[in-house]
Amino acid sequence: MRFVRQPNHLHERQIERALEAMLRDKLEEAHQYGEGFATMWRVAAECIVDGKMLRPRLFLNALEALAPTQDNDQAIRLAAAIEMLHYSFLLHDDVIDGDLRRRGRPNFIGTLLREHELADRPAATAAQGDGQPAALHWARSNGILMGDLLLSTAHLLFARESMPDPTRVRLLDLLDRTITESVAGEQLDVSLSDGILTADFETALRMSRLKTASYTFDFPLKAAVIIAGASETVEASVGVVASQMGLAFQLQDDLLSTFGQAAAHGKDAFSDLREGKETAIIAYARTTSAWPRIEPRFGDPDLTREDARRLRELLVECGADRYVQIVVDDLLSECATLLASPDTAIPQPLAQFLTGFIDQLRERDS
Amino acid sequence: MRFVRQPNHLHERQIERALEAMLRDKLEEAHQYGEGFATMWRVAAECIVDGKMLRPRLFLNALEALAPTQDNDQAIRLAAAIEMLHYSFLLHDDVIDGDLRRRGRPNFIGTLLREHELADRPAATAAQGDGQPAALHWARSNGILMGDLLLSTAHLLFARESMPDPTRVRLLDLLDRTITESVAGEQLDVSLSDGILTADFETALRMSRLKTASYTFDFPLKAAVIIAGASETVEASVGVVASQMGLAFQLQDDLLSTFGQAAAHGKDAFSDLREGKETAIIAYARTTSAWPRIEPRFGDPDLTREDARRLRELLVECGADRYVQIVVDDLLSECATLLASPDTAIPQPLAQFLTGFIDQLRERDS
Repeated sequence: MRFVRQPNHLHERQIERALEAMLRDKLEEAHQYGEGFATMWRVAAECIVDGKMLRPRLFLNALEALAPTQDNDQAIRLAAAIEMLHYSFLLHDDVIDGDLRRRGRPNFIGTLLREHELADRPAATAAQGDGQPAALHWARSNGILMGDLLLSTAHLLFARESMPDPTRVRLLDLLDRTITESVAGEQLDVSLSDGILTADFETALRMSRLKTASYTFDFPLKAAVIIAGASETVEASVGVVASQMGLAFQLQDDLLSTFGQAAAHGKDAFSDLREGKETAIIAYARTTSAWPRIEPRFGDPDLTREDARRLRELLVECGADRYVQIVVDDLLSECATLLASPDTAIPQPLAQFLTGFIDQLRERDS
Repeated sequence: MRFVRQPNHLHERQIERALEAMLRDKLEEAHQYGEGFATMWRVAAECIVDGKMLRPRLFLNALEALAPTQDNDQAIRLAAAIEMLHYSFLLHDDVIDGDLRRRGRPNFIGTLLREHELADRPAATAAQGDGQPAALHWARSNGILMGDLLLSTAHLLFARESMPDPTRVRLLDLLDRTITESVAGEQLDVSLSDGILTADFETALRMSRLKTASYTFDFPLKAAVIIAGASETVEASVGVVASQMGLAFQLQDDLLSTFGQAAAHGKDAFSDLREGKETAIIAYARTTSAWPRIEPRFGDPDLTREDARRLRELLVECGADRYVQIVVDDLLSECATLLASPDTAIPQPLAQFLTGFIDQLRERDS
């Protein structure tokens, strides 16, 4: 089941339309600054509307559950801002990881590179000081700059909305914590991947919680609580569930990109193994007797498909996939229990929506 | 004369104190996310307070000229936000340019690298896919992430201030245009340096205007106009002067880093020539008969000091420095004439301050 394309279809269309309108305005404005700048916005817009809209749909569904009478236009604008924020993180992620593909096709950087190669332009000059070909350096630099633009745009969308000062400050404080946590998680990820820190299982979980759970679940759900005017007690209870769901979601992502079908997941097959991503799967494998057979090829940029398949077999053999799957199941069960508790501070309609969402996560295979 | 340390000393101390307090809070909060994350904030804080505070001082001086009774605490917070925004741009600039030094000492990335080498940590693992040493990849990735944090922090500082909705939206619209222009300028810069576009003199000027004038002069001065509640006519007139002053300032920067004393300016000697920066100086030199003798070594990462000195001589010989200096002088004279005009919409106290500032720029040698 492709849970990511599940209803609410209405929300998905509304978010897409809002994003398309915003991005059209940005592209129009961009033309006055030259063709290269407009190209950045055009390619970014194509990538953004290709997303699953998971985070803005979580926000809109949660808001609908909490405050069915809420100003719909404002909610849609905020939802679009949430998706832009997400994409700005993805862009800088791709720069840092050196990835040229995402969602089964060239990403922003890969698309710019391909268009450059196809165009009849003057050849890029000398390689950069660090030996990178100039065209690759240019495309990656565009990735950094486009990420900055989208990060700024997302912040300004939140900041421009008219709402009472206390609500606005509460929302901006949430955004502040979210950015801090997401960046702290990404920084931990880079430090692990580059071997600056050594990963144990707990650190890998902490990294996933910060890097993904915070902005993917905690932020959209708490933003809905704040916009709906619900209490800080509700916000805190939602936060506990969101953090566990988000961690389960990232661990599923790790399982899918290591063991799943590349075609369904959309990432480069084996890219995590090739890049030496320090996922929870790897952190577990380190503690097993299989590790000395995994370590020599793990993180090898020249890993062949055959090597990668062998690594995958070893990870299965040592029980890493089974172990992480159990952690996922436990996290989702814990969330379901919290939501079903008569003591929960989470209002019933929201608890029901989240319970349904957990059922979808349990069936997730892409 | 080191114009950058000129009075108003009171403002400089106020801005530094505000920045120090904000950064102390951020560092304290950062510790809960681990040592690596706290290190980022500590090193960034050291770099930020080391700045010249040119942009926030412009803002405070302009605001004082326009509205002497303005809320001082808010003004200082906004001034600090302006400096943070500046530093977030510098950080991503350094990542893109591959620079490890700034202001005469290791920059954020260089400091992280040095601390990593000095620390008794496990050696970083395999080189990244693109051949970068892992420690360098890690330090640069930290630069991207720290830039994101500061960009976000600056936006949130603007957004959190309590002010009437129309003032806030006007300020945020200005911030939006400023980010767009600065990024468009940086994108143009990268496209020129990487040989994706070829630079003519007009393009080099447009790049400087976008990349530097917009956020260095236009933004602080117009922000002061908006906070002071002055009209859009005043804002537009200030914008014309700011754009010319800002362009002159960037051209001076180019002259100083190509022909000035590296020690006074603080940049790596010859780094612009080594990186192949497509400044207005180079764009002019391209049109002269000296170019065939300059081109072969321009942008060579292995440029020796002797080669660089020879390039510099050729640039003087072909008249590039003289030509750009004339452009600077013309721009500053034009500003002075505009400010002295009885028809100017700019209120007298602000016009006087700007006239004084232009005199300082004329004497600038660092």
